[in-house]
Amino acid sequence: MLYLIPLPLTDTLTTDNLLIPQAREIIASTDYYLVENVRTARRFISSLKTGRAIEQLRFFELDKQTNLQQIAEHFKEIPPDAAVGVMSEAGCPGVADPGQVAVQYAHQTGKKVVPLVGPSSVLLALMASGFNGQSFAFHGYLPIQKQDKVKALKQLEKEAGRGQTQIFIETPYRNDALVNDMLAHLQPHTQLCIAAHLTAPDEFIKTQKISDWQKNKPILGKVPAIFLLGSLL
Amino acid sequence: MLYLIPLPLTDTLTTDNLLIPQAREIIASTDYYLVENVRTARRFISSLKTGRAIEQLRFFELDKQTNLQQIAEHFKEIPPDAAVGVMSEAGCPGVADPGQVAVQYAHQTGKKVVPLVGPSSVLLALMASGFNGQSFAFHGYLPIQKQDKVKALKQLEKEAGRGQTQIFIETPYRNDALVNDMLAHLQPHTQLCIAAHLTAPDEFIKTQKISDWQKNKPILGKVPAIFLLGSLL
Repeated sequence: MLYLIPLPLTDTLTTDNLLIPQAREIIASTDYYLVENVRTARRFISSLKTGRAIEQLRFFELDKQTNLQQIAEHFKEIPPDAAVGVMSEAGCPGVADPGQVAVQYAHQTGKKVVPLVGPSSVLLALMASGFNGQSFAFHGYLPIQKQDKVKALKQLEKEAGRGQTQIFIETPYRNDALVNDMLAHLQPHTQLCIAAHLTAPDEFIKTQKISDWQKNKPILGKVPAIFLLGSLL
Repeated sequence: MLYLIPLPLTDTLTTDNLLIPQAREIIASTDYYLVENVRTARRFISSLKTGRAIEQLRFFELDKQTNLQQIAEHFKEIPPDAAVGVMSEAGCPGVADPGQVAVQYAHQTGKKVVPLVGPSSVLLALMASGFNGQSFAFHGYLPIQKQDKVKALKQLEKEAGRGQTQIFIETPYRNDALVNDMLAHLQPHTQLCIAAHLTAPDEFIKTQKISDWQKNKPILGKVPAIFLLGSLL
């Protein structure tokens, strides 16, 4: 079994409150982990106080660069019938995060893949945006270079106008620059949802027209944020 | 507060195991609900045994046809400071399910929207597919008419080949017809993931080439299923 285990989106005291009992049970009986960040994974597992000694668990690193060959090497050190957990730094492994290559290996070698229910900023933001959830696209990061970014934004605005909700993220320290670019270059009537620090006590989610955002420009700072362009019913 | 409360994807004994403690707490202290199906919502809330009398809760229907005006009417019967829960029939409200219009009303009237962590077949399938989770699109249902459906499938195959994972669903009684159409009309090397009965004890998730599916054609029957075309790393 390859368990895909979502991690909390934020490092808060509310973590326990957001974990399904099944995830706790599976972690309590799993010894092998493929993880994006060993320190984060250890700390998360320790915080659950499952009674297992953390030193007895084996962690293998799995990041954006990890390839199928390396995953196969890791599995040579794992007993064939052992349960293996996959964890990214935050949220769902394989969704805007590493994990894909481990899943691919599992499908190719006939292991059962079990995705667990947990937080995804993409999904939470989509639910809370009020935008079309029958048709949507997630694009990850937009181009860094300003001219390309503005061009991409205008293309997404067009698609959103056609009814497909457009979802994208930005590196936290560039959040406010991205907001500035949207306020400067998108149409006044375009609907923008900004969702920041999801699941945290200071969670912020708001959907309004670009012209309304302009009247009251948000300062996000360096929090994890996600942006959506969409149409209302 | 408008709480967006995901419901279990399947009607099984494992429900409790898949619910975050926060959702239970919120349901225990919420009296007003906008729900896709009153019977399902009542049964779900009852199953949690929160100690609240189900007769004291107020349910308003919210389906695909419900408009903003009707939501506004419902809110006239709800005290301004009361917490309101939104529930669709299964999974996350607003994602491939009704709910959007209630969220839109909340944004327009300055209510705080709080999306809760819970099961989404779209997200679980994407995680478990092994396909690109940095770029993906969900399309809901494909056209019913065969010629249009095949045309849509070929277009999705093209997009998937360019690296954007393509996700779609089908009415359960048409699952096997859709699989037949894919096996007949997509390229042999195209990667298809089929995810059926997610979170149920007989959950089935498999990713392989069309040519491999052809060798061993799946019979899904009338279970909830989700389909993905994508590229491997």
